[in-house]
Amino acid sequence: MSSQTKFKKDKEIIAEYEAQIKEIRTQLAEQFKCLEQQSESRLQLLQDLQEFFRRKAEIELEYSRSLEKLAERFSSKIRSSREHQFKKDQYLLSPVNCWYLVLHQTRRESRDHATLNDIFMNNVIVRLSQISEDVIRLFKKSKEIGLQMHEELLKVTNELYTVMKTYHMYHAESISAESKLKEAEKQEEKQFNKSGDLSMNLLRHEDRPQRRSSVKKIEKMKEKRQAKYSENKLKCTKARNDYLLNLAATNAAISKYYIHDVSDLIDCCDLGFHASLARTFRTYLSAEYNLETSRHEGLDVIENAVDNLDSRSDKHTVMDMCNQVFCPPLKFEFQPHMGDEVCQVSAQQPVQTELLMRYHQLQSRLATLKIENEEVRKTLDATMQTLQDMLTVEDFDVSDAFQHSRSTESVKSAASETYMSKINIAKRRANQQETEMFYFTKFKEYVNGSNLITKLQAKHDLLKQTLGEEKDECSRVKTTTSKPQCILFFPGERAECGTTSLLGESSCVKCVTLRGSDKHIGTSSTT
Amino acid sequence: MSSQTKFKKDKEIIAEYEAQIKEIRTQLAEQFKCLEQQSESRLQLLQDLQEFFRRKAEIELEYSRSLEKLAERFSSKIRSSREHQFKKDQYLLSPVNCWYLVLHQTRRESRDHATLNDIFMNNVIVRLSQISEDVIRLFKKSKEIGLQMHEELLKVTNELYTVMKTYHMYHAESISAESKLKEAEKQEEKQFNKSGDLSMNLLRHEDRPQRRSSVKKIEKMKEKRQAKYSENKLKCTKARNDYLLNLAATNAAISKYYIHDVSDLIDCCDLGFHASLARTFRTYLSAEYNLETSRHEGLDVIENAVDNLDSRSDKHTVMDMCNQVFCPPLKFEFQPHMGDEVCQVSAQQPVQTELLMRYHQLQSRLATLKIENEEVRKTLDATMQTLQDMLTVEDFDVSDAFQHSRSTESVKSAASETYMSKINIAKRRANQQETEMFYFTKFKEYVNGSNLITKLQAKHDLLKQTLGEEKDECSRVKTTTSKPQCILFFPGERAECGTTSLLGESSCVKCVTLRGSDKHIGTSSTT
Repeated sequence: MSSQTKFKKDKEIIAEYEAQIKEIRTQLAEQFKCLEQQSESRLQLLQDLQEFFRRKAEIELEYSRSLEKLAERFSSKIRSSREHQFKKDQYLLSPVNCWYLVLHQTRRESRDHATLNDIFMNNVIVRLSQISEDVIRLFKKSKEIGLQMHEELLKVTNELYTVMKTYHMYHAESISAESKLKEAEKQEEKQFNKSGDLSMNLLRHEDRPQRRSSVKKIEKMKEKRQAKYSENKLKCTKARNDYLLNLAATNAAISKYYIHDVSDLIDCCDLGFHASLARTFRTYLSAEYNLETSRHEGLDVIENAVDNLDSRSDKHTVMDMCNQVFCPPLKFEFQPHMGDEVCQVSAQQPVQTELLMRYHQLQSRLATLKIENEEVRKTLDATMQTLQDMLTVEDFDVSDAFQHSRSTESVKSAASETYMSKINIAKRRANQQETEMFYFTKFKEYVNGSNLITKLQAKHDLLKQTLGEEKDECSRVKTTTSKPQCILFFPGERAECGTTSLLGESSCVKCVTLRGSDKHIGTSSTT
Repeated sequence: MSSQTKFKKDKEIIAEYEAQIKEIRTQLAEQFKCLEQQSESRLQLLQDLQEFFRRKAEIELEYSRSLEKLAERFSSKIRSSREHQFKKDQYLLSPVNCWYLVLHQTRRESRDHATLNDIFMNNVIVRLSQISEDVIRLFKKSKEIGLQMHEELLKVTNELYTVMKTYHMYHAESISAESKLKEAEKQEEKQFNKSGDLSMNLLRHEDRPQRRSSVKKIEKMKEKRQAKYSENKLKCTKARNDYLLNLAATNAAISKYYIHDVSDLIDCCDLGFHASLARTFRTYLSAEYNLETSRHEGLDVIENAVDNLDSRSDKHTVMDMCNQVFCPPLKFEFQPHMGDEVCQVSAQQPVQTELLMRYHQLQSRLATLKIENEEVRKTLDATMQTLQDMLTVEDFDVSDAFQHSRSTESVKSAASETYMSKINIAKRRANQQETEMFYFTKFKEYVNGSNLITKLQAKHDLLKQTLGEEKDECSRVKTTTSKPQCILFFPGERAECGTTSLLGESSCVKCVTLRGSDKHIGTSSTT
């Protein structure tokens, strides 16, 4: 470069300099524009977020109100039908408990979504508008600082311009002084050459003093010009030094600005923006996470109630509730006719032989019947097991439906495939009802058989007793015909009748009922 | 009892029996009513649940549509403003990334609530209507079996009635035969007493044969009556035995019915009800739990993006994006005037002494300035720390708002207390802005100081170099004025300017920018 522009003049240099300054000014202006755009897009983002959360809050409130209305519709229905609140609570059946908890959960969801609305409106949106204020204020202040930085840069470049011009001036003067000196030197040389020729060719004495004064004059001028040149050269050197030092200072200042100051300026604009925005988003997240936790707690309560759905306990609750209806009646007592004093089976001759024969017949008949009925019971149990397997199939996992919504855009119908397809449902229901039919047929058969066994067994037992023991019969008959009590207090009955209840192990009604009552105490507090 | 009603007649006994039978019939009818009521309340419950889930499904759909619309409103705005999709993705700023993820989460929630609607409508409600069918069918079948059981009970009691009547008849006959026999015995005794008197007082031979035939007649009658009595007594004994055996059988049958059959009957009505209902509730729970899981996953993605909100990275993204604007300009070069061949600071005499003096002045001035500016920097750092503490205060936990909704009925405003109260906000904001003002004042002071230091340092360094070394200066000046490169490739600049960037440790622009770019790659894939 320096070799090409070796003879650059002031004007050229200044034009180049000015072009360079113009470029910097353009860049600085662009930087402000960039900062402004950044602030504007932040304000736009904040405005979008505010609009979003305002509308989301509205949606949450609508949702909350719909849920509230839904829960209230059924709750008021329940309240109006509950004439005996206390009694109902005491006798709360497990499916009804689940239903109450579903309503409770609905109210809870309603409240939580209302809280979401409140947090969005009174916290998230407030924060966002504060951040908007901050962005505006910080942009203004940063621009102020930026302007000061730019002024400083332009001041530095102006100084550079000044010292450059000074250098140009002194250098121009130095050149001029140098050329004048060179001219003087040329004249001196010319004079010197002339006198040399003369002294060698024509030595005229009369010319000598004239020539001597001329040489002296030239020498004097040369000395003067030499001094002028030296002075100008020193001035030029100083100006050049100044120019070079200012050049270094200017480049350092510009470099500092581009490397550090502009970055610090952006930091001033950013001051707290990310932190405040993060806190706003975290408020939103905290609200959503808390809503979720609350929802989850409620669902767990329902799940617990579903785990506790219990037909046996409910059955005994119903029987407790209507204990007048299910309480066994008074036993039929022996009524002696017209003061008949015999009140027991008489097993004296001549009836003894006949009774004995009858007893043995009963015994063998019962043995056969029991074997037959046991076979029916086994079939019944197996059928029940098949039914139970159908009724408790684990077909309720719908996570696939949400997997779809996670991976693809479209909502796939949860009923369209797997368990809930119409063909599957129809097939399974037909199968279930067929098994059910068979179960009832077998059940009737079993009940008939066990009814017969019960009656024959009672006769058999009475005959056995009569034939076995002859003494104090009367007092024993009295004991068996004592007043019957409530169903709950028939602990001995099961052994007497000789059959077992169909659905299982715990036939002691009293125990089961008490177990049921415990459950009510446990669950009634949740409604 | 037996002592009071010792002489009960047929009619009394039958009246009592009939009263007892009537009572049992009433109970049996009531039991059916109870089963019917139970089935009816189940049907009512199932109907309520169906209505509930139908309405809940509608609410979910409304909510889903509102969310969809909300997300679409902003998404379409984003799409239309995204003229250079690729470029935007590449230069995605961290707050914008959070915003996109919030919109994404809104769409996800919309889809999940639509899925909830689908599951309620096409699965839960279908199940509930099937259970209703089952309840009706099972009640019918159970009633059929119950009727059969009741018929059997009435058959047994009818039999008892018959054998009791037979007993009454034979006992009445037995009593009658006994009284007739007693009459005959009385006559015989009379005859015997009469003959005893005659033989002692008036023994008439002509009377004897007459009397003997009379006695024989009486004895014959007595024998006949004795036989009749014995026959009747046996018949009565057999009838009583039959009555007693049937009594035992009847009581056993009734007892069996009340203890076991009625319970089995209820079980028939219940068959599968609890299991099917549990599966229905579990379907509902599965849907709700899955919605929650999906929601949680989405929130976690947002939380992660919030954790990654990064002002430094964003700053460098912006500077990358507008690299023409932030790229440092060409350095000002020394422009030799009119072929001036000196292009470095000249330190020969007579300027050497002056330059040396100037150098020493600069040195001491710089030392003072640096100490002063370091003090300003310390204040600035402390102020920034205070600001940072204010800006990152953890004030976003809103779990209290949900605690309220958990424990009490009313929705308390989340803004009414603690952090978001208006007084607190105003106080904190005033405090923050005051600190901010002070920070900016100090920042200006620091920038001014460091600008001066930069310029003086550049001059100082150039003088030091010039005064220190005298040889090959020209070539060195050439190196420092070589063409400037992009901001990213100024590794040596920091040491030259002698100041450090305000906000911290990593002033190597290149490294920070690269770090920022990595982040973009990581987060851009989530939109």
